[in-house]
Amino acid sequence: MIAFFLSLSLSCSQNIIRKESTMTELLPLEKSIIHTDHNGLTQEEFANLKEKTIKAKDLSYSPYSNFRVGATILTTCGEYISGANVENASYGACICAERTAITRAVVSGFKSFRAIGISTDLKDKIGSPCGICRQVIREFGLNVSIYLFNVDGSKYFRVQLKDILPLSFGPSDLGLPEHDG
Amino acid sequence: MIAFFLSLSLSCSQNIIRKESTMTELLPLEKSIIHTDHNGLTQEEFANLKEKTIKAKDLSYSPYSNFRVGATILTTCGEYISGANVENASYGACICAERTAITRAVVSGFKSFRAIGISTDLKDKIGSPCGICRQVIREFGLNVSIYLFNVDGSKYFRVQLKDILPLSFGPSDLGLPEHDG
Amino acid sequence: MIAFFLSLSLSCSQNIIRKESTMTELLPLEKSIIHTDHNGLTQEEFANLKEKTIKAKDLSYSPYSNFRVGATILTTCGEYISGANVENASYGACICAERTAITRAVVSGFKSFRAIGISTDLKDKIGSPCGICRQVIREFGLNVSIYLFNVDGSKYFRVQLKDILPLSFGPSDLGLPEHDG
Amino acid sequence: MIAFFLSLSLSCSQNIIRKESTMTELLPLEKSIIHTDHNGLTQEEFANLKEKTIKAKDLSYSPYSNFRVGATILTTCGEYISGANVENASYGACICAERTAITRAVVSGFKSFRAIGISTDLKDKIGSPCGICRQVIREFGLNVSIYLFNVDGSKYFRVQLKDILPLSFGPSDLGLPEHDG
Repeated sequence: MIAFFLSLSLSCSQNIIRKESTMTELLPLEKSIIHTDHNGLTQEEFANLKEKTIKAKDLSYSPYSNFRVGATILTTCGEYISGANVENASYGACICAERTAITRAVVSGFKSFRAIGISTDLKDKIGSPCGICRQVIREFGLNVSIYLFNVDGSKYFRVQLKDILPLSFGPSDLGLPEHDG
Repeated sequence: MIAFFLSLSLSCSQNIIRKESTMTELLPLEKSIIHTDHNGLTQEEFANLKEKTIKAKDLSYSPYSNFRVGATILTTCGEYISGANVENASYGACICAERTAITRAVVSGFKSFRAIGISTDLKDKIGSPCGICRQVIREFGLNVSIYLFNVDGSKYFRVQLKDILPLSFGPSDLGLPEHDG
Repeated sequence: MIAFFLSLSLSCSQNIIRKESTMTELLPLEKSIIHTDHNGLTQEEFANLKEKTIKAKDLSYSPYSNFRVGATILTTCGEYISGANVENASYGACICAERTAITRAVVSGFKSFRAIGISTDLKDKIGSPCGICRQVIREFGLNVSIYLFNVDGSKYFRVQLKDILPLSFGPSDLGLPEHDG
Repeated sequence: MIAFFLSLSLSCSQNIIRKESTMTELLPLEKSIIHTDHNGLTQEEFANLKEKTIKAKDLSYSPYSNFRVGATILTTCGEYISGANVENASYGACICAERTAITRAVVSGFKSFRAIGISTDLKDKIGSPCGICRQVIREFGLNVSIYLFNVDGSKYFRVQLKDILPLSFGPSDLGLPEHDG
């Protein structure tokens, strides 16, 4: 397992290295926030999250970017809620997979999330959430685990929301209570 | 019935008159696009749409505006799918009720819509969708009926998407086929 | 001149007809809101607005859509302020030309606008603002004239904001005063 | 100077501690990315950036949040370009100060930025950019210095874009070249 995780970690790093043409290597800070376990999720929960996240890409409406993204939320109540990107002819009106999943969860009555899975069709990279989605996830808590899967879920890594949006702007900045998440 | 519709139409106009402080009266164009019937929906469909739209406001996460909005979509398959506004400490990341409903419908597999109901808590006004939401609804078709309900659904009027977003920008402007809706 | 306007009006209609694959012809409402004059602007003002709007496309950052859009605002103070679309790898973060022009005007101290010119590179169509931009323009007034130019400004038509965003949602809906525009 | 920076660092931490009610103390990662110098900017450049950033708040159009934010960009060409938040009755159409400054810079012909200053009216906190703005800044490079000033600029700290949006999603994820910044 350790060997597996090491190789996985390495492959993740390489993905990121290829991804950031402005960096000669993965930043130390970035290395330090990448986790390769799924502590906090049982094998069954992890398997469910992965399967539903990969499957969610089939829900994508992305005729403009042809870039399918799927996301699945695991709520603290144990519910799995999926989303996908829904694009628009006016690009600014496009809504990413993470946000369609989050809003679907909220209007389904859930505001506390344990984990979010995300997958794209990138073959040799592991996609990462955009800043808009980090902001929308953050509204409901800083301690959400985000699982980033490659195209088929054969590789992944985990990051924590608070690590990919440090010094974030949230409810307490406007005098409102923070959520538990 | 006619008398009813007349008084309703009048009350709608008065709502709008109060609403637009820059207009001394409802614009002729606006008068011409307001409908007070629910042709195309059976009594049962209309009653369902109204009830679910009013109820959807309970799903609203709007701690910043304290302005609850509920929306419900009736798909061409006969499904009712509700949404509500989901706000964010960064206002630009707020997502309106119409959009949470539309994206929820799309990621549930529905892209063709017959009607959308919208309701706010405004007592003496009938709210109207913002331009962002008109754009997102428009992506899936120009012929959607939009039912605008007052706080409890006791008053409403109907508009067609194509009438509240004329000369719209959509898929065909970027060389993609238009949806049926 | 009349013949010219007729042929122009006709060409505009044809553009729109080609544009809206879901319509067999320009909607009566749409025909009724298209103007082919530039009343309210002097020949010099109109010429300046057109020239600066076409030129503004050179400012576009649109590597994702390759769809350049330029916009120029004429303020009530007589200032011309241009913008262009600024896109982002996360499409939802894209900002249209009309909005970069409006925000540039506002942070330059102007909040009252007489006219906005818009131009795309569409050869056989006259582009129209998306719903997001109509909403952002509307914040500052309902009576703004919008000039829609074809690729080189050789054809155009004028619409009024209040006609392309009827029954709009604005400041007065949230208890704030409307702007003069 | 050292004592000054130490006390400043401490006060920043306390600000953040108060800010994040879900954290008992500043996260180690957050501590590690906060800088209290302005290396890379001369005293004059830093003074100019601070003054223009504080002043930019006067340009804010924020009748809905009453939360003024000012931002100023220093381009690699030495230009200072300011922005402020421009809000909308439809909250989702609000555009933050950082984005009005970035888009203003881009449509002024600048796409390479050395530093961005940000200031709010928060008395006992130092505000931080939202995820949307981090995404928009990131489009033009990972190596921008962001100076976060308190209400009057008497306190500040510096972070690097790449540290507050690690593992970011950008142009290279869609096959486009990264910018230099």
